[in-house]
Amino acid sequence: MTEQKKIAILGGTGALGSGLAKRWAKAGHQVIVGSRTADKAQEAANALPVASGGPKAQGATNLDAARQGDIVVLTVPFSNHNALLEEIRDVVQGKIVIDAVVPLVPPKVAVVQLPAEGSAGMIAHKMIGDKARVVAAFQNVGAAKLQADEPIACDILVTSDDQEARKVVIGLIQDIGMRGVDAGPIANSAAADAMTSLLIGINKRYKVDCAGIQITGLAG
Amino acid sequence: MTEQKKIAILGGTGALGSGLAKRWAKAGHQVIVGSRTADKAQEAANALPVASGGPKAQGATNLDAARQGDIVVLTVPFSNHNALLEEIRDVVQGKIVIDAVVPLVPPKVAVVQLPAEGSAGMIAHKMIGDKARVVAAFQNVGAAKLQADEPIACDILVTSDDQEARKVVIGLIQDIGMRGVDAGPIANSAAADAMTSLLIGINKRYKVDCAGIQITGLAG
Repeated sequence: MTEQKKIAILGGTGALGSGLAKRWAKAGHQVIVGSRTADKAQEAANALPVASGGPKAQGATNLDAARQGDIVVLTVPFSNHNALLEEIRDVVQGKIVIDAVVPLVPPKVAVVQLPAEGSAGMIAHKMIGDKARVVAAFQNVGAAKLQADEPIACDILVTSDDQEARKVVIGLIQDIGMRGVDAGPIANSAAADAMTSLLIGINKRYKVDCAGIQITGLAG
Repeated sequence: MTEQKKIAILGGTGALGSGLAKRWAKAGHQVIVGSRTADKAQEAANALPVASGGPKAQGATNLDAARQGDIVVLTVPFSNHNALLEEIRDVVQGKIVIDAVVPLVPPKVAVVQLPAEGSAGMIAHKMIGDKARVVAAFQNVGAAKLQADEPIACDILVTSDDQEARKVVIGLIQDIGMRGVDAGPIANSAAADAMTSLLIGINKRYKVDCAGIQITGLAG
């Protein structure tokens, strides 16, 4: 494992957030589950596994969780994305903020409809990038797969204008048994955001439930 | 093999076009190489393999090739994309037009910079979609890999608003030993266009020359 980190997962009671929380808690990281109410967050934290010798997960409001975490992960629906960024803006100075939010536009979530800014990560970068080290990741992994205790055949595309932050996040991804791929600047998160709609459509069209992507041709 | 087709490859003397031409000629399809001058096109056609019992490839200007083909494939640089669409607009009525052009913006080709329309395929769809059956495909496969006689570890994302046309193209992809994945409406070609920039960057960053993508979790 990489060095133990305090990982605050905002929207951590949702499917994706709790899946990530579970895997990082198991890996021995200090997970702080963030939610709209501290009670609900604490309840979700209590349900998380505790690694042997590892810390117990804590619950807090999203804002408190963002304040406490070394690493802050956004896993809220896109409709809450910008408001949450506004809310945490002043408490994430110098921190790595991982944006896992996908800009899906219901009801046609299987059709690519990227925001004018290019991607959710680009929005975050514009809103808080002067303070935080924004990294986009985890757009393409199904929540159900994170919840299961099995290996996941899906790479995580990691994008950020902060190359060092990309490396840290790739390490954290390795801690949960997956491969992070350094996919370049934050503008490239548009590819991952768009890919999520394709995977949703492919799941329906091929009658499967866990389509993912893998980068081929990498050494190692 | 699927039923033999006349496949016109516009820009067919370039790296991507000649790679596709080579593979389809080998598979026994009637390839028509299109280029700016008929002479250059014929020269490239003469260099293509001929399948046992298959037809010899022909050369023609891009416009003549588009006129002759059952299937028309665009493999020109993005800077020529719109002019070519304008040129062939009147001769592709009812035909499947496969847009393999990627909207790269030099010099930063490893950074996603999608056009306002969303993708090259969306541009083609808007420009000639009232006449032709526009399908976007082949954005993510390296030309060098098509030129080589080896299996390619890269899926081809196939998008179109014409579901039947997607199926035909997936068949043609199978003919050249690759897997086409039905990735939904033409709007979804933005994901494939964007992915090309990621793969170019990944090749540099990981010091490899053939990064590709694969869709995981599909049955079969």
